[in-house]
Amino acid sequence: MAEPKLFVGLDVGGTTMKAAVVDDAGKPAKDVSLPTEPERGQEAGLETMCEAIRQAVQAAGTTMDRIAAIGVATPGLMDIKKGLILDPPNLRPWRNVPVPAHIKRVFNKPTAFQNDANAAALGEFWVGAGRAVDSFGLFTLGTGVGGGIILGGQVVEGAHSHGAELGHTRLELPDRGRLCGCGRRGCLEAYASATAVVARTREAMAAYREPTRLRELLRDDDGAEFSSKEVFDAAAAGDGLARQIVDDTAYYLALGACNLIATVDPEMICFGGGMSEAGEDFLAKIREYIGRFGLSYPAKSVQVRYAELGSDAGFIGAAACARMLVGRAG
Amino acid sequence: MAEPKLFVGLDVGGTTMKAAVVDDAGKPAKDVSLPTEPERGQEAGLETMCEAIRQAVQAAGTTMDRIAAIGVATPGLMDIKKGLILDPPNLRPWRNVPVPAHIKRVFNKPTAFQNDANAAALGEFWVGAGRAVDSFGLFTLGTGVGGGIILGGQVVEGAHSHGAELGHTRLELPDRGRLCGCGRRGCLEAYASATAVVARTREAMAAYREPTRLRELLRDDDGAEFSSKEVFDAAAAGDGLARQIVDDTAYYLALGACNLIATVDPEMICFGGGMSEAGEDFLAKIREYIGRFGLSYPAKSVQVRYAELGSDAGFIGAAACARMLVGRAG
Repeated sequence: MAEPKLFVGLDVGGTTMKAAVVDDAGKPAKDVSLPTEPERGQEAGLETMCEAIRQAVQAAGTTMDRIAAIGVATPGLMDIKKGLILDPPNLRPWRNVPVPAHIKRVFNKPTAFQNDANAAALGEFWVGAGRAVDSFGLFTLGTGVGGGIILGGQVVEGAHSHGAELGHTRLELPDRGRLCGCGRRGCLEAYASATAVVARTREAMAAYREPTRLRELLRDDDGAEFSSKEVFDAAAAGDGLARQIVDDTAYYLALGACNLIATVDPEMICFGGGMSEAGEDFLAKIREYIGRFGLSYPAKSVQVRYAELGSDAGFIGAAACARMLVGRAG
Repeated sequence: MAEPKLFVGLDVGGTTMKAAVVDDAGKPAKDVSLPTEPERGQEAGLETMCEAIRQAVQAAGTTMDRIAAIGVATPGLMDIKKGLILDPPNLRPWRNVPVPAHIKRVFNKPTAFQNDANAAALGEFWVGAGRAVDSFGLFTLGTGVGGGIILGGQVVEGAHSHGAELGHTRLELPDRGRLCGCGRRGCLEAYASATAVVARTREAMAAYREPTRLRELLRDDDGAEFSSKEVFDAAAAGDGLARQIVDDTAYYLALGACNLIATVDPEMICFGGGMSEAGEDFLAKIREYIGRFGLSYPAKSVQVRYAELGSDAGFIGAAACARMLVGRAG
């Protein structure tokens, strides 16, 4: 009997890349992290990716000949079919980087390539929050709002590698919506990303000049920085203004979820990223708003959860892509 | 060598049902139409469906033993997996009608069951506007706005039979959007259906009290009925107010298309139904707005077309479902 198959999953972020060996059941060995340092250029970046893969194999106490395939997840903009990172804003100055071709050449292994949020969705679908469902949508909440959709066991990667850009579905008309990082107005991301939560908090504090506990908590009179986590903490501590902002965030996320329901009607919708530590009350609010503003039948039936794999979802999902690549080939 | 396979496709609408034999290449024989008359009750409705199937076989000059499978498309609300029409508003008083089970029992043939807009999308994908692409989204423009999505050759029917309810993706926040037939506010359908075009025209005429050619054309001073077609005709004849309404309609449809792009990023987006006779200028406007308000890369690459099969798309798509059912079984 053959030894069980092993895969390497590598998740490349703007700051850090993480890699681990993952077995055929989705269980990761000890993971390794290396700084991405995109400013050192793409040749250096490709070398760091290879080094992360080598270190992951070593950390797992195995050898490269036991690895069946490698999967790499990177942030967009990318061309998945051509195997290129195009020019993603958080990997500047990288441009047209042939990631899977390079890694395949170095290690002589089948190499899968996927968008990072898509990979995270596949990871959660494989062994995380979505492991028991047949169709699945993930919203990743961070500086932006990303997304991944799994239907029929496959990643919806899109004809032009832009599947599940869920942060850019619409909540308001372009002439009156909030300004999004993509340059357009009215996208979900402009309302519900961590960045947008901070922006809405600043606006609310500017509009309500009376002293609030929120202002004290944030010590923001001098324009100092604060994060969305501090707004959620202030809400948890009972601050009224912060609670309103958190409630609005749940409302906006629910409206984004309702767009996803009306388009692909998944069995489960999941929220991952920093805000997914906001607790069950926040999730209950999202559920309530989905029930109010979504199509009745699917909105009352869809499962709404937090993601379970944290920042491991990306490399586990990348390994899942590797596994599917070999499965298809064999 | 076996004779080529034949299928029957049946498309049940609120007013009429249409059926035809369709060959393995998607070519329909002469189709037949019968009145649906839902008010006569669901037992009568099921018998009319069977009669339409019999007449279609006869009209094709063939016999039932040559038919490999039957496909039936019906309007929602339905449970596709359970094979039930639940209680769709345009088939009142039907309720929990086991359509495919009944037809399978009567004809002893494998019987597929699908939502009508999904079936129309599959028909267009098989032998219509989408025959050369790998992924496809259809907006059907009529009293409401329906939709169908084909990814990986499969209909996105949804975990709760609500896949591609594209008329209910969002353009505006619920507290300020236009009221939709679904009871919520801000859905695409509330802006871009034929009904919504008429409603927006009435509002525009009420707001601009000076005489317009539109008002003359519509002879609406006494509140008489007019259709969206007359508004499009008035625009084509040069009426300024009508042109604005048509332009706004293109804008709203484009925003709906942008939601679809950001969610599944299809290779082609297609518009079918009555408004698809509005001509190439209208389509060019939709394309222009998609380019302005969609995610740059997919918005400039997506193909935007009119549907090609007209009202035949439903029964051809139903036959395609039958064909896929037999393909899967064999």
